[in-house]
Amino acid sequence: MLTLCVSDVSGPIAGVFTKNRVAAAPVLLDRHHLQSHRGRAIIVNSGNANACTGEQGLLAAQTMATAVAHRLAIPVQQVFVGSTGVIGRALPIDRITRALPTLISRLSVQGGHQAAQAILTTDLRPKTVVVQAKIDGGLVTIGGMAKGSGMIHPNMATMLAYLTTDAAIAASALQRALKSATDRSFNCITVDGDTSTNDTVLCLANGLAKNRTIQPGTRSYRAFERLLTEAAQALALMICRDGEGVTKVVKVRVEGATTPAAAKRVAETIATSNLFKTALFGEDANWGRVMAAIGRSGVAINPDRVVVRFDDIVMVRRGVGTGLDAEKKIAKVFKRKEFTVAIHLAQGSADAHMWTTDLSYDYVRINASYRS
Amino acid sequence: MLTLCVSDVSGPIAGVFTKNRVAAAPVLLDRHHLQSHRGRAIIVNSGNANACTGEQGLLAAQTMATAVAHRLAIPVQQVFVGSTGVIGRALPIDRITRALPTLISRLSVQGGHQAAQAILTTDLRPKTVVVQAKIDGGLVTIGGMAKGSGMIHPNMATMLAYLTTDAAIAASALQRALKSATDRSFNCITVDGDTSTNDTVLCLANGLAKNRTIQPGTRSYRAFERLLTEAAQALALMICRDGEGVTKVVKVRVEGATTPAAAKRVAETIATSNLFKTALFGEDANWGRVMAAIGRSGVAINPDRVVVRFDDIVMVRRGVGTGLDAEKKIAKVFKRKEFTVAIHLAQGSADAHMWTTDLSYDYVRINASYRS
Repeated sequence: MLTLCVSDVSGPIAGVFTKNRVAAAPVLLDRHHLQSHRGRAIIVNSGNANACTGEQGLLAAQTMATAVAHRLAIPVQQVFVGSTGVIGRALPIDRITRALPTLISRLSVQGGHQAAQAILTTDLRPKTVVVQAKIDGGLVTIGGMAKGSGMIHPNMATMLAYLTTDAAIAASALQRALKSATDRSFNCITVDGDTSTNDTVLCLANGLAKNRTIQPGTRSYRAFERLLTEAAQALALMICRDGEGVTKVVKVRVEGATTPAAAKRVAETIATSNLFKTALFGEDANWGRVMAAIGRSGVAINPDRVVVRFDDIVMVRRGVGTGLDAEKKIAKVFKRKEFTVAIHLAQGSADAHMWTTDLSYDYVRINASYRS
Repeated sequence: MLTLCVSDVSGPIAGVFTKNRVAAAPVLLDRHHLQSHRGRAIIVNSGNANACTGEQGLLAAQTMATAVAHRLAIPVQQVFVGSTGVIGRALPIDRITRALPTLISRLSVQGGHQAAQAILTTDLRPKTVVVQAKIDGGLVTIGGMAKGSGMIHPNMATMLAYLTTDAAIAASALQRALKSATDRSFNCITVDGDTSTNDTVLCLANGLAKNRTIQPGTRSYRAFERLLTEAAQALALMICRDGEGVTKVVKVRVEGATTPAAAKRVAETIATSNLFKTALFGEDANWGRVMAAIGRSGVAINPDRVVVRFDDIVMVRRGVGTGLDAEKKIAKVFKRKEFTVAIHLAQGSADAHMWTTDLSYDYVRINASYRS
């Protein structure tokens, strides 16, 4: 399927991409186009990731952008490309260019929902968000759509999120806000540790809200960053909640670490532990797996200080279980659809959090048989 | 269940333990006893890990060692303790001390198989090995037993391996050989990334082979290290192959890396990827998941140089898929019970390998419901 988003006017654009060294062709192209910091159109295909396709793949991505630029009579550097699907197959570029005229003729301000549908792969539900706030004299709107992945469809190997806003904002402020929002949203959900070759978050701003142009470091910048983070977090949680097989979404919060990186590392080790994730699926209140994950995170924690809470129940104090009574209580917490496991390391004041999901039969089923 | 191993005479002992900061009481005790570098007896209980049990747990481990030392009339520092099972429950130390007289009365040179049975938790098969070689005038025998875990039973959170030898060997040589053998065996199998609170490998030597005492850096040292590595690798592969749910054991070999650490990191990223492991289970020749794992390993690889082989079939050359014909051929490789995926990074001359298993429904089933 194909999606095309076009802004009435060009504007600053910001992007955050996969850190995977095996980056897909559309990611390489978008990084290149991002150098001009201006965008107008985004075209996305689902079904084929255009990754591990070499020069051929890069040419295909370029052709995709050029065809859009040509038909819309806009500079090719203002066209951004996304792809998601199977890795290692040639992109059927002819089918894409042939479909372009129809795609363009159907462009509409009401097309958001259809666009959000068309970027999906095995997602069960489309993911969209709209948030608004008054910023410096203008009513600023941010709309977003995402595709992913969660822990369920990572075979598609891709989390894509496209945000648009009518805010007037400097390109540098937009990039900084998007990086910050991504770090607190899409980078806080654990899929299954597999960073895709195609992960992309783009935010295009066109200034039509007529607010005073937002500059980095100002109060209006902070208001915009908050708004963008809110939109990104909403999409990120939708990714977690969506998908066959996910029966639980659990927030892992780590406090009292010496540094934010240490806090994040501990949170990530718990959130990606297959043992913890299968225990979630089985609603087995196996808190020992949380302790084991904390211990192997590589962070120099002091086990004798660790406190572990499941929602409001303290299960571990000074590194030792608080007894069978608490175990009975957390058994009930494990039956909730969503809950928080909070770890206090009592070493410093840094914190971090992650959202994770359970590891279910359906995860294995979907991922064992996706391609064939 | 309880296991007791006693040597006729005391001798040097070497140990390698979990790097988990939340180390179980028996690990803390063994590390302490290892300072004297001499051992005579090893006692192991299954069913309870004695981890996250605080001072109470440490006292229980000490009591376990002291009771054995007392009844055998040997120094307590020469008694080593192992525990495996559920985390966070008090060790039923009275039951253990009460069982000791019976345990001691049944000590026998024929008891190896029973001992190997008694350390198991949810393992399907006992794991034992015996290897022999002539070293410096003596016939040296190494016997070993292991318990684990594999990717299947890591809820038990523990890989235990106990090796004994009649070699005459200096304590420093024994420790070095055990570290090296462990790095090339137990540290090369991926369970599921979850390092246990209890992982322990011990090697006790009693010198009864009457060879000239093996010193570090000699030819006989190298012969002993090879022999010990052979025994450890055999046990490690048994751990991989054992267990419900494992349908495949796959060797991941990485060559042409700039450093051994980089090679290991790439191998580990592939070997622990849930996407790759579910593809193995589904016999889905999804080589894109291997490329994605290589790319996200954190190693500065150059995607345009990467070669990927499945057994003898080249599927990726210069980072690009070699076509549908190769895909058909590797589909057959994926149906084998055991095969090798070999990655060449073409950046240097360092290499590393790991053994991994598939991620199956049974993995989820067993781990979702182990405790309850």
